[in-house]
Amino acid sequence: MNIMTDHKGKDLMTGGTEHTHGGVAVADPGILPDLKELPGGITAPKGFRAAGINCGVKKSKKDLCLLLSDAPASAAVVLTTNRVQAAPVLVTREQVERSRVFRAIVVNSGNANACTGDRGMEDAWAMVGAAASALNVGRDEVLVSSTGVIGQFLPIDTITEGIKEAAAFLSPQGGGAAAEAIITTDTFVKEHALEFDINGVRVTMGGMAKGSGMIAPNMATMLAFVTTDAAVSPAVLHCALSRAADRSFNRISVDGDTSTNDMVAVLANGRSGAEPLTEAGGPHYGAFYAALEEMLVTLSKMIVKDGEGATKFIEISVTGAADESSAVRAARAIANSNLVKTAINGEDANWGRILAAVGYSGIDFDPSMVEIFFGSVPILRRNYTIDFSEEAAKKVLSRKEITITVALHQGEGSASFWTCDLSKEYVAINANYRT
Amino acid sequence: MNIMTDHKGKDLMTGGTEHTHGGVAVADPGILPDLKELPGGITAPKGFRAAGINCGVKKSKKDLCLLLSDAPASAAVVLTTNRVQAAPVLVTREQVERSRVFRAIVVNSGNANACTGDRGMEDAWAMVGAAASALNVGRDEVLVSSTGVIGQFLPIDTITEGIKEAAAFLSPQGGGAAAEAIITTDTFVKEHALEFDINGVRVTMGGMAKGSGMIAPNMATMLAFVTTDAAVSPAVLHCALSRAADRSFNRISVDGDTSTNDMVAVLANGRSGAEPLTEAGGPHYGAFYAALEEMLVTLSKMIVKDGEGATKFIEISVTGAADESSAVRAARAIANSNLVKTAINGEDANWGRILAAVGYSGIDFDPSMVEIFFGSVPILRRNYTIDFSEEAAKKVLSRKEITITVALHQGEGSASFWTCDLSKEYVAINANYRT
Repeated sequence: MNIMTDHKGKDLMTGGTEHTHGGVAVADPGILPDLKELPGGITAPKGFRAAGINCGVKKSKKDLCLLLSDAPASAAVVLTTNRVQAAPVLVTREQVERSRVFRAIVVNSGNANACTGDRGMEDAWAMVGAAASALNVGRDEVLVSSTGVIGQFLPIDTITEGIKEAAAFLSPQGGGAAAEAIITTDTFVKEHALEFDINGVRVTMGGMAKGSGMIAPNMATMLAFVTTDAAVSPAVLHCALSRAADRSFNRISVDGDTSTNDMVAVLANGRSGAEPLTEAGGPHYGAFYAALEEMLVTLSKMIVKDGEGATKFIEISVTGAADESSAVRAARAIANSNLVKTAINGEDANWGRILAAVGYSGIDFDPSMVEIFFGSVPILRRNYTIDFSEEAAKKVLSRKEITITVALHQGEGSASFWTCDLSKEYVAINANYRT
Repeated sequence: MNIMTDHKGKDLMTGGTEHTHGGVAVADPGILPDLKELPGGITAPKGFRAAGINCGVKKSKKDLCLLLSDAPASAAVVLTTNRVQAAPVLVTREQVERSRVFRAIVVNSGNANACTGDRGMEDAWAMVGAAASALNVGRDEVLVSSTGVIGQFLPIDTITEGIKEAAAFLSPQGGGAAAEAIITTDTFVKEHALEFDINGVRVTMGGMAKGSGMIAPNMATMLAFVTTDAAVSPAVLHCALSRAADRSFNRISVDGDTSTNDMVAVLANGRSGAEPLTEAGGPHYGAFYAALEEMLVTLSKMIVKDGEGATKFIEISVTGAADESSAVRAARAIANSNLVKTAINGEDANWGRILAAVGYSGIDFDPSMVEIFFGSVPILRRNYTIDFSEEAAKKVLSRKEITITVALHQGEGSASFWTCDLSKEYVAINANYRT
């Protein structure tokens, strides 16, 4: 079950505070007047074509995605930190160590090509080669990604045939089909697009993601691909992606497990004709960064909302921590606590579990200063003063989207983190996934 | 539901390897011929009396426990690392900072006296004072502990009256009643006793624990109290407890949450007449340490077996890690993975989730070297070779007690860790605990 049938996130980031990045004040996206949501996904920006087809890895659902930039594009990539890395992750890492300019991405779903040893590496390189030849680009201009079952070899001939076939379907309207081809057990397709101005020129950004619906038979994989027709140097793109991924994908959790195949890639092809961004913190960098963060946060929230068995979307907001990293640690501990997640599943105003999670998060704070709010309802005040109406708390907790605010009153650090509840359905889904 | 109706652990620790402690080889308990299980608990050793009564914190179940040593006893205490610490934890910390010789412990269940500010501290000291006066010992000779609901003040007059009353019931046969008085939602009483020799003199050790049945309304609290008539200096006792707790209570997990009230305390009163142990690593220290570790491991396993909603007891054994701490990290990651725990709940031989958990544990290893066994059935061999019968794997997984061995083939480090599966019942129990 997922709670987001209308999956286009309507809420751009809110908040009027400023944060600094590389010493330069960067306005939060919420206060940028020109950030506008568009329909579509990765083919919304100029100069990108995509295709998504069924090639035969899965029975009938789409399982192969191609993305092509008409011009060489700056690329930035973030890969899983899991020590066990799937072959396509290793190949993509080699590719981006060699170059930062790419033309294409090929992705299959249904088979993760993970724990497949030397043959898995050969297969991942074969996908790169087949895509390069079908798209008429260099082998060093292609990124590769896979998601699905672990520990099985790819049906590589099926896939390379499929790549040839998919190339014929490439189109500037292909974003939706591509987004469909990268998902596995996700209950909805995850796409997002937006536009903004760089020095008066309209720039577009598009994205798609594959969420935490579990990958049979093994683990959740998170994939996200973002395109933009902004002109951004590889170094600047890398800088922006590192920070934005840290404030989005690294601030969500469904069950705390990290996959072997996680990958986030951004391609910027410059086709908008906007002024190139060549310096992090330089002119217009703030607008670009804000758009990228908004894109990644929106895709992140979609992933949480499609969490297995999720019945509620939970935003954990920690304020007044000694610094931002303490706020993130506290928020992550709350978000990963099975006790907190089950309590919210049961709509139980169990503030003690929240306070205890902050207590074992490892940050320094004075427990007697802590205040906790569910929505706008105060639950715990300073000096352990508990004075709330169960009815008012229950009303907030009965909603599908819940914000929990924990005010530590120690300093100026704050962070948001997104998670979902833990339901019996999560256990049911995961107890018998392979069988 | 718990899986251990016959809760007396029959299996003493096995394994014939040696580990070193303070540079001295310490034999594992499995190879000590004279470690023998006894009936009973904390009053099995000479010179200890205990009582457990209902004083009125709970409706009718026992809720107040007194333990008295007839002679001053060396004490060692391990307390929760949670930054949020209940008043009795803070009071006990003050007491052991001042002295290492104690006569008595007073424990109430049904109310944790946590998040209760200054009044909570006064109440915890009032419990100490009432116990000292009822037992005719010094205020500085009493340890205090509480478990139960958080964020509510103790009914302190009820408790101090109860302490007077309980003193009249103190008896060398009172261990069972005491063990009953410290539990909350545990489904069985947790007691263990054993005897061993120190230089030809019979020494006895007894213990009781309160497990991970959840404490309404807030969190699991783990309490354990151990008595022995061995003569052990406070410094040696502290050294032995630190290590043994690290290899027992710090190697279990039900849901990864750490309570505000956790406490393990050991009292050694010397009444056996055995040779005093005054040096960690000195003569007979190995025998004492082995007995203590066996005691704590047994109590730890009882706690896991009584985990909320647990249907299976799981031993995670990691071998061949670079060192012991890497083995513990890997084992803990597996034990805390909801994906692993739900797969085992569903009796699904999902080895990929296990390998992925080791991958994100942060240790250094070569994934292609890993081997995984369920019981004695090989599931994954080196170079990602998968060759197992689903039927054989299913047979192992259908048992109530399952050992998962992960052989890393990197070095000599090994560790065991104990956990339980994650069931729908866990969610059901915790979703609506307060209501």
